[in-house]
Amino acid sequence: MNLSIEQARSLVSAALEAAGASPTMAANTAQALVLAEAQGLVSHGLYRIGQYAAHLRNGRANGAAIPSVSRSRSSVLVVDAHGGLAFGACALAVNEALVVAREHGVCFSGVVNSHHAGVMVDHLRPLAAAGMVGLAFSNAPAAMPGAGGRHPVFGTNPVAAIFPRRAADPLMIDLSLSEVARGKLMVAAREGKSIPVGWALDLHGEPTTDPQAGMDGMMLPLGGGAKGAMLALMVELLVSALIGARFSFEASTFFTDEGNAPGLGQAFLVIDPAALAGAEAFSDRVEQLVDALQRDPEVRLPGARRLALERQAASQGLNITEELHQQLLHLARPMAS
Amino acid sequence: MNLSIEQARSLVSAALEAAGASPTMAANTAQALVLAEAQGLVSHGLYRIGQYAAHLRNGRANGAAIPSVSRSRSSVLVVDAHGGLAFGACALAVNEALVVAREHGVCFSGVVNSHHAGVMVDHLRPLAAAGMVGLAFSNAPAAMPGAGGRHPVFGTNPVAAIFPRRAADPLMIDLSLSEVARGKLMVAAREGKSIPVGWALDLHGEPTTDPQAGMDGMMLPLGGGAKGAMLALMVELLVSALIGARFSFEASTFFTDEGNAPGLGQAFLVIDPAALAGAEAFSDRVEQLVDALQRDPEVRLPGARRLALERQAASQGLNITEELHQQLLHLARPMAS
Repeated sequence: MNLSIEQARSLVSAALEAAGASPTMAANTAQALVLAEAQGLVSHGLYRIGQYAAHLRNGRANGAAIPSVSRSRSSVLVVDAHGGLAFGACALAVNEALVVAREHGVCFSGVVNSHHAGVMVDHLRPLAAAGMVGLAFSNAPAAMPGAGGRHPVFGTNPVAAIFPRRAADPLMIDLSLSEVARGKLMVAAREGKSIPVGWALDLHGEPTTDPQAGMDGMMLPLGGGAKGAMLALMVELLVSALIGARFSFEASTFFTDEGNAPGLGQAFLVIDPAALAGAEAFSDRVEQLVDALQRDPEVRLPGARRLALERQAASQGLNITEELHQQLLHLARPMAS
Repeated sequence: MNLSIEQARSLVSAALEAAGASPTMAANTAQALVLAEAQGLVSHGLYRIGQYAAHLRNGRANGAAIPSVSRSRSSVLVVDAHGGLAFGACALAVNEALVVAREHGVCFSGVVNSHHAGVMVDHLRPLAAAGMVGLAFSNAPAAMPGAGGRHPVFGTNPVAAIFPRRAADPLMIDLSLSEVARGKLMVAAREGKSIPVGWALDLHGEPTTDPQAGMDGMMLPLGGGAKGAMLALMVELLVSALIGARFSFEASTFFTDEGNAPGLGQAFLVIDPAALAGAEAFSDRVEQLVDALQRDPEVRLPGARRLALERQAASQGLNITEELHQQLLHLARPMAS
């Protein structure tokens, strides 16, 4: 089944509105999920619609929420997502931070009472378009132990960054702090494949090669455990203690319909190159570093692959399974009342 | 040989002054190196004195440099280290950022024309004492390839963070973005031991188990290459393109006396919890997360081990080899003129 980007957005938006999302929330969530799908990031793509719709229906996400901003000092701000889906709140936090960073050089902004934030670096795209540098952090339902631990405390707590280029796609850095993305376990489980030791622990904190046991248990942090766990702790403290979101271990998993309003958090740092080395010097230096990296023909620039897929999808549309298409059509149908 | 902390500081300071450092630069560098040694971080400890002294003597470091601050917008600032040793410039960048973050909620500060920055998290200690959160980044002479590459482009580019606690030691996160710290290769080489595959590549970009071949070649980034390389790229762009420091690949190695003034950079982010979730809420949440982590008895809090060693050294002094002691005495002796 092939859908154009516009068709996919309309269908997803209709499915979310039917589940109770406001037209604005439905539209910005649809845009984000279709963008993820277009980039080949299927674990954050249309696959999520059933989950989001269920959460809107059972109250884990508040479809009527309208994000609000508070700013106690000049260069920081907090957006309250009021329990809605994350995308509108993140866009508000980034867009407001952009304005603040233009004036003050930097802005640190956060989102509380939030939900699944999808592809973190995509929140930062408006920054690159405006010539700004951005970093993003999020927590997520607990899926990784602390360094040396046997119980999940941290989410896979992604870190993302965007750096604009003068006449080329921005450099888009985006990684979760697990050794591999949880989506890889989901894919392995669906395909009946085993996973390497070092990706996950089972429920009892023992190493496993069974993707389902890993999903029932926990992911291992990047780099054999310790360094990834330190970075995950850093992200966790930024979004929870500092900004005020719930902890990863307080949020119910997204992989069941039931559970609490997760109350997770995101943090964004926006910096204006014009306030530091200068916009021209910044752009010159980015190109010099790209040149240095590309002296190794094997090195791929971060974000290049997903942006190539995105362009392909823009011209050729999205290929989705008939099963997913039927699910979307079913969800988009007005509920029997 | 046992030296008290004060004796070690005096001796190191004298050695640096004899090599041309100003009394201020000598004193703050001595404090940092002795603090590293006291924490058991020997690869950033007294071992470095010979290197620093040689660089002061041959012009790779400017002993007369006085760091200066420029601030083009309210919440960002850049310190020019003017080619001196890094510690005074980093202290200035952190202390100024602390004042700015109190007023504006956040400050992003950087250091350019800098040198080896030692133990990154130690620069952040004044922040924890003031109830502030801090992050730190640095580049370093090129020692790691880009993702999938075979030539060194990035330094091991450390990331550090400090989070104060209400009535306990701060959480001190500090890691280089290589799979292991370069110091581990130096130790293995000194002890004639081999290293595991995955730590380093040789000069030709091939995996190696020979620590000397790894030191002649390059370290591998954290997490099998890709994720660590993405984080190293992020750090590199923050300190070079954004702040204006030299690239890692433009700086000569620290492991020879000869070479250029490295011109490396550091970046600091200082955030005031009082401007976000609030100081009390922040402290409550930090304690809740520490409690959650410590439900796993195997989990060690970041910084705990080094702070325990530091306290031990404060009461029992530093044990150094007779060879190192003789080197320090030799360096501290006024030069024949």
